[in-house]
Amino acid sequence: MTTTDLLRRRARLLGARAPLFYDEPLHIVRGEGVWLYDAAGRRYLDCYNNVPHVGHCHPHVVAALARQAATLNVHTRYLHETILEYGERLTSRFAPSLSMVLFVCTGSEANDQALRIARLHTGATGIICTNTTYHGNTTAVDELATLFHGGAGVAPHVRAVPFPDSYRPLGGLAGAALAAAYAQEVRHAIEAFQADGVGFAGMLVCPIFANEGLPVVPPGFMEQAVRHVREAGGLYIADEVQAGFGRTGRMWGYEIDAVVPDIVTLGKPMGNGHPLAAVVTRADLLEEFRAQVMYFNTFGGNPVSCAVGNAVLDVIDAENLVDNARVVGEYVRAGLRAMQDRHRLIGDVRGHGLWIGAELVCDRETRLPAAGEAHRTINMMKDRGVLMGRIGPHDNVLKIRPPMPFSRGDADLLLATLDEVLGRIERDPQ
Amino acid sequence: MTTTDLLRRRARLLGARAPLFYDEPLHIVRGEGVWLYDAAGRRYLDCYNNVPHVGHCHPHVVAALARQAATLNVHTRYLHETILEYGERLTSRFAPSLSMVLFVCTGSEANDQALRIARLHTGATGIICTNTTYHGNTTAVDELATLFHGGAGVAPHVRAVPFPDSYRPLGGLAGAALAAAYAQEVRHAIEAFQADGVGFAGMLVCPIFANEGLPVVPPGFMEQAVRHVREAGGLYIADEVQAGFGRTGRMWGYEIDAVVPDIVTLGKPMGNGHPLAAVVTRADLLEEFRAQVMYFNTFGGNPVSCAVGNAVLDVIDAENLVDNARVVGEYVRAGLRAMQDRHRLIGDVRGHGLWIGAELVCDRETRLPAAGEAHRTINMMKDRGVLMGRIGPHDNVLKIRPPMPFSRGDADLLLATLDEVLGRIERDPQ
Repeated sequence: MTTTDLLRRRARLLGARAPLFYDEPLHIVRGEGVWLYDAAGRRYLDCYNNVPHVGHCHPHVVAALARQAATLNVHTRYLHETILEYGERLTSRFAPSLSMVLFVCTGSEANDQALRIARLHTGATGIICTNTTYHGNTTAVDELATLFHGGAGVAPHVRAVPFPDSYRPLGGLAGAALAAAYAQEVRHAIEAFQADGVGFAGMLVCPIFANEGLPVVPPGFMEQAVRHVREAGGLYIADEVQAGFGRTGRMWGYEIDAVVPDIVTLGKPMGNGHPLAAVVTRADLLEEFRAQVMYFNTFGGNPVSCAVGNAVLDVIDAENLVDNARVVGEYVRAGLRAMQDRHRLIGDVRGHGLWIGAELVCDRETRLPAAGEAHRTINMMKDRGVLMGRIGPHDNVLKIRPPMPFSRGDADLLLATLDEVLGRIERDPQ
Repeated sequence: MTTTDLLRRRARLLGARAPLFYDEPLHIVRGEGVWLYDAAGRRYLDCYNNVPHVGHCHPHVVAALARQAATLNVHTRYLHETILEYGERLTSRFAPSLSMVLFVCTGSEANDQALRIARLHTGATGIICTNTTYHGNTTAVDELATLFHGGAGVAPHVRAVPFPDSYRPLGGLAGAALAAAYAQEVRHAIEAFQADGVGFAGMLVCPIFANEGLPVVPPGFMEQAVRHVREAGGLYIADEVQAGFGRTGRMWGYEIDAVVPDIVTLGKPMGNGHPLAAVVTRADLLEEFRAQVMYFNTFGGNPVSCAVGNAVLDVIDAENLVDNARVVGEYVRAGLRAMQDRHRLIGDVRGHGLWIGAELVCDRETRLPAAGEAHRTINMMKDRGVLMGRIGPHDNVLKIRPPMPFSRGDADLLLATLDEVLGRIERDPQ
């Protein structure tokens, strides 16, 4: 089957616009650890897939999946020990106030239920998010993706605030003044909801603002923003779908700013590819929700999903993957910063643990985004066997977010390949 | 671990109101075929779980799951043959107009995306559903479950019509007049949306009205209702989450009335417990959606899910499960009807294939629902090793919806046990 044939069948079945990576799409057939293999047997270093969190096809996770699927796979309206073992183990890793869990299947479902919990609790519907975010694809969650709606909210109960950014700072401010200015935007959005009569339910953000391009958050912003949220009776919902499970070198992204959320949503890495996601929240909020809503999820929290979730935690612990993310992540950032001496394209290097962004700019003074160069970079990297993506409001931030067992040796290959590719692009601008 | 301990841990972790079956919940540890086993080793004939569609832990499905999970599990932005093979095989079983597919993870996600497609296509938001339905738990889909909102819609863009019912018919009508009366309710709801300025997007119903208690639909109703829907520019969305994959003795529930939907949603049985679901729809509708919406689902349609979906179709075909559903389902209904001579409680017996409802009434003349007796019945059946549920607006319809390999022998055990239980309840009313 040629690529042309596959593309033709795909367009007819899934739609001509069903998204694909790369100018020439990859036909991947096998994965192992940090490696992906295409149909021709060529291998690629995976530097961006975060769903295969503990490595593609990790044998411990696959064995747990196969064993439980052969034993029992039913819904949660019978008693089962695995859901309790997993749920207790999971919640024990959060701040004590985050003690209860609602299992779902996807990050979209988790964020949708988080919105329901917050709106039911407050009796109001207004939700604050950032201006270039994405939290999922249900009707309610899609309303937050104002990026895809031409920058405008599609609903009166969504208000997007500028994401906190130290690289292209609001009003050219810095430090404490910058943090206060961004927090002030949150306060103004709250006041606008109150003035509209919509009322204010809460703020839903990724604690590391991953889809916003992983900005350096001005110190103090999160604390001030959440204070405004709580003073107005709203809830702070942290979307840990990308930041969670040790990705940042800490177990949860919210630990970076030490601001404990009221609701946390989990997804992608949780089941290493198995559709497992959750809402972790305060006991009073979940009991209130369950008292007023007949909530049930057919697949959520079934024994197979929970066995998989348990196996993922096993591997994170056994292989010290949180430490690895911190150490190797810092090593990659140091390598990228060293490369800034040779490559004027790299305007900024940032991130936490193994979630790393390198912003490409045409000029370090004007900081004009180099989106075309970022596009060339990821396609040329792919041709050289290294997979990475790009992200951010200008699509010019190189996205480095590999499976967690990523080693220093893997980092060396990534850095050497990127060094060569950026050199070529700089010598041969198009 | 005692049941008391499990219940205590569960309440603390999942909430005191997290739903459980039975007055004394079961602690199930193993499943095989149509059988479930509890922690004490006792076995139960499963007469209601439809998610383990081809049987609990079917070895062919488990093997496909384990094999693909050990090989590759990534998102759909690379080319992969399994998604094409499965999607083509799936859509080939639908009417030719239903040629494209959008993979998701749950029936809730499928219905949510179906609403997005219909609303985007029509530019209107009004959705018609029935007055005692449930289609899932996202914010948008939950708005249709007016049953849980005290019978009232929670949103101006949802209107609930009376479900078509021949047992407690609208206005005491029958035959063609009854079908026309129910269809007229649909037309009135459309007109109300138009008068409100909400506009009309479509009608979302289960083609066999499963959650409504599986009523006998007056012949001609679906055709007339869908004609009204289409004349007003709306779409007919069929929720096949329960009716699909041969459950009714036909591959799809919509085939019973021979009214081809514009959008079909699939869920529960599709992956035999693996979180796999889909929207199957017309090419023009999906292309229009993809042209205007940046839609992507992290887990939906991944190679593992599609390998599992393929294996489920393999078993349906190899074990002739659609024929089995038709033949054994009719056998069960005949047995239940024969029992009506001995048990005055059984007011009505109905259904399609292996989706069977037996309505319990206090009196066959007044048709007063016998919800208490239905509650006693399912708990006493459980004590005798046979699992069934109850459903319908009055919670008095015994719900018989077993895994598809349910045999005549299994049916004999179900019928004999029910015969004894109903006899005891009739001799000893409480």
